[in-house]
Amino acid sequence: MNTRIVTVDLDSRSYDIFIGQGLLYRLADFIPSDIEGQTFFIVTDENVETYARRVSNILSEAGAAKSKLYTLEPGESRKSLKTCEQIIDWLLDENVTRDSVVIAVGGGVIGDIAGFCASVTLRGIPYIQIPTTLLAQVDSSVGGKTGVNARQGKNMIGSFYQPQAVIIDLETLQTLPQREFLSGYAEIVKYGLIRDIGFFNWLDQNAQDVLRQEEDALIHAIEMSVKAKAGIVEADERESNLRALLNLGHSFGHALETAAEYDGRLLHGEAVAIGMVMAFDLSSRMKLCSRSDMQRVEQHLISNGLPSRAAFIQPPVETSAEALLDIMRHDKKNTSGRMRLILANGIGEAFLSDSASEDMILNVLADSLSDEGQGGAVSAGKSKDGLWTRVFSSHS
Amino acid sequence: MNTRIVTVDLDSRSYDIFIGQGLLYRLADFIPSDIEGQTFFIVTDENVETYARRVSNILSEAGAAKSKLYTLEPGESRKSLKTCEQIIDWLLDENVTRDSVVIAVGGGVIGDIAGFCASVTLRGIPYIQIPTTLLAQVDSSVGGKTGVNARQGKNMIGSFYQPQAVIIDLETLQTLPQREFLSGYAEIVKYGLIRDIGFFNWLDQNAQDVLRQEEDALIHAIEMSVKAKAGIVEADERESNLRALLNLGHSFGHALETAAEYDGRLLHGEAVAIGMVMAFDLSSRMKLCSRSDMQRVEQHLISNGLPSRAAFIQPPVETSAEALLDIMRHDKKNTSGRMRLILANGIGEAFLSDSASEDMILNVLADSLSDEGQGGAVSAGKSKDGLWTRVFSSHS
Repeated sequence: MNTRIVTVDLDSRSYDIFIGQGLLYRLADFIPSDIEGQTFFIVTDENVETYARRVSNILSEAGAAKSKLYTLEPGESRKSLKTCEQIIDWLLDENVTRDSVVIAVGGGVIGDIAGFCASVTLRGIPYIQIPTTLLAQVDSSVGGKTGVNARQGKNMIGSFYQPQAVIIDLETLQTLPQREFLSGYAEIVKYGLIRDIGFFNWLDQNAQDVLRQEEDALIHAIEMSVKAKAGIVEADERESNLRALLNLGHSFGHALETAAEYDGRLLHGEAVAIGMVMAFDLSSRMKLCSRSDMQRVEQHLISNGLPSRAAFIQPPVETSAEALLDIMRHDKKNTSGRMRLILANGIGEAFLSDSASEDMILNVLADSLSDEGQGGAVSAGKSKDGLWTRVFSSHS
Repeated sequence: MNTRIVTVDLDSRSYDIFIGQGLLYRLADFIPSDIEGQTFFIVTDENVETYARRVSNILSEAGAAKSKLYTLEPGESRKSLKTCEQIIDWLLDENVTRDSVVIAVGGGVIGDIAGFCASVTLRGIPYIQIPTTLLAQVDSSVGGKTGVNARQGKNMIGSFYQPQAVIIDLETLQTLPQREFLSGYAEIVKYGLIRDIGFFNWLDQNAQDVLRQEEDALIHAIEMSVKAKAGIVEADERESNLRALLNLGHSFGHALETAAEYDGRLLHGEAVAIGMVMAFDLSSRMKLCSRSDMQRVEQHLISNGLPSRAAFIQPPVETSAEALLDIMRHDKKNTSGRMRLILANGIGEAFLSDSASEDMILNVLADSLSDEGQGGAVSAGKSKDGLWTRVFSSHS
């Protein structure tokens, strides 16, 4: 079987990421600690409880002393300290010990919640990630960021805490809605844009195979993404400079997500897609990269079914460039008042900068909110099944 | 001025501990980051708010952009996730950034709460400890353990998170009630008992100078304690085996504290004192150390005003040896059902063991609860000011 292993090398906190089809059926091969006599606490949500039950059954068959489920309602609104309090209370009531294992089975929300609970229960107990969305598989499950939202913003409370293993089973993607799959794909594109033009070129050739979940193409895309993220995390675990590159498109994207009120009309990866186009738009206005780089990024996203401009969000976000800029000013990644953004000298050449002027950022935001971009005439809308469909036609 | 510096060497998380008289007046010398333009968030309690205000004023005079206070009611009951939620909410409302600094001014409760809040706000912001009780100075402020209590037990929720500096100003001890000072002294004795008979012998000679807060003696006792703890933490940051030695007397002590319901009749260090005698009692019954070692430990504690037996607790704890054993079985330091205790081959020769039989532990607990110990006839009580007073008379 085609199983890939990517090791995240963080000294005593190193761990393996396993990628393949049907890995859950061979789960025992990938759990780094003993299963026999051990207690496991599985945190999941209703959408993917079926996989969590499969995990629980396989652990029980392999001799686990206990293998219990905690099932949350799906959704970002559950990502709160209140939910964590309930989960920790459950763990303690179930006599969790320091060699118990917490397993997250779900998307990014579940991984972030379960990881945070594992990191603070008994000052830290082992946990394992089984991400079931493409977004979580290529992004949030790697790198050890955990967290929950606060009234004041997303992921304001959390920890850096590495899992003991990440098990990526492609089979769990078969029940993922296509729009969410595409949202994850946006983060795959991001790794190419940050520092691997070769990977971006490969995606330009093979995107349709990846989106059809053709096994070899999908495994390659996930492996390349996970390796890119692992490499950056290894060099900079606690987000000083290098790790910040992973935020390409995210400062713009978070502002849009905030404006769209997390009501489902804009998924995280969709916001990142629009944000990445804005980052390249800004970079080209600052003469860092060519206008054609920005157009190539936009075309790749659009032709694969992702939105590229804030104007495409339906129903439209009722906001202004000024309001979005104000949200960006409060990003927790800023230090002492400077706005730090990821810009690019070209595709595959991203870097951290605080040199962009607020005027220029305002112009980029305004153009993204307007249907009349400089990159070409773009029309967009949503099909009946909620997927983004649009036609990109450059000036000619 | 007589300022001692002990460095805790933990690679990128290394930090200095400063010990001396009147250090708060020279605070700017000990803050590792820039003060000018920086924001500081000081967490304290009503008992020591005066020192916190001093810190705040000095920081403002040194050019801090902001230096705000959050004052808690004193007491262990505040050590909850609920309190942390309120503090984190305050930090976020005050626009905390990743280069803001949280400063804990207070005893162990304040340090544990503030450290935990700092560790999970924005996934970790710098914090500095200014411990104002002897217990916090020699124990909880060193080593990076943070935490709050849960319904199911003490310190069940927390993190390992190192401060950027620890500033120990002897002057803050002048307002500390003598009974609390003595409680901290028990932890000083612990370091001698664990692995430094020379230090224990020094304490036997100089305890009265330490307890009178004679500057040189007190600085030496604190420095030796901090060095002992730092050495153990450096070798074993996340409590596998070596660090467990610091729990000498603590498994017994925690059981007593639980039975005494944390209502103030038994302070932590008092419980540890009684627990250390039980650990040596158990060790001598197991023929690991001599009976005279156990008697020497008990005599040192008693003659310096600390309790040595559960029977001395006033009002008496309404519990049984069986009930205490049951509490010990649920200690979070146990793994997979084995009871792990710190035993000793003699004074200064402690080690981790899971070989004690429950029968023998039961006997030790029963004898401590009874006034008729094997170590000698002991009478004890409390003076009007709440201090422990008793006469130790060995069989003769």
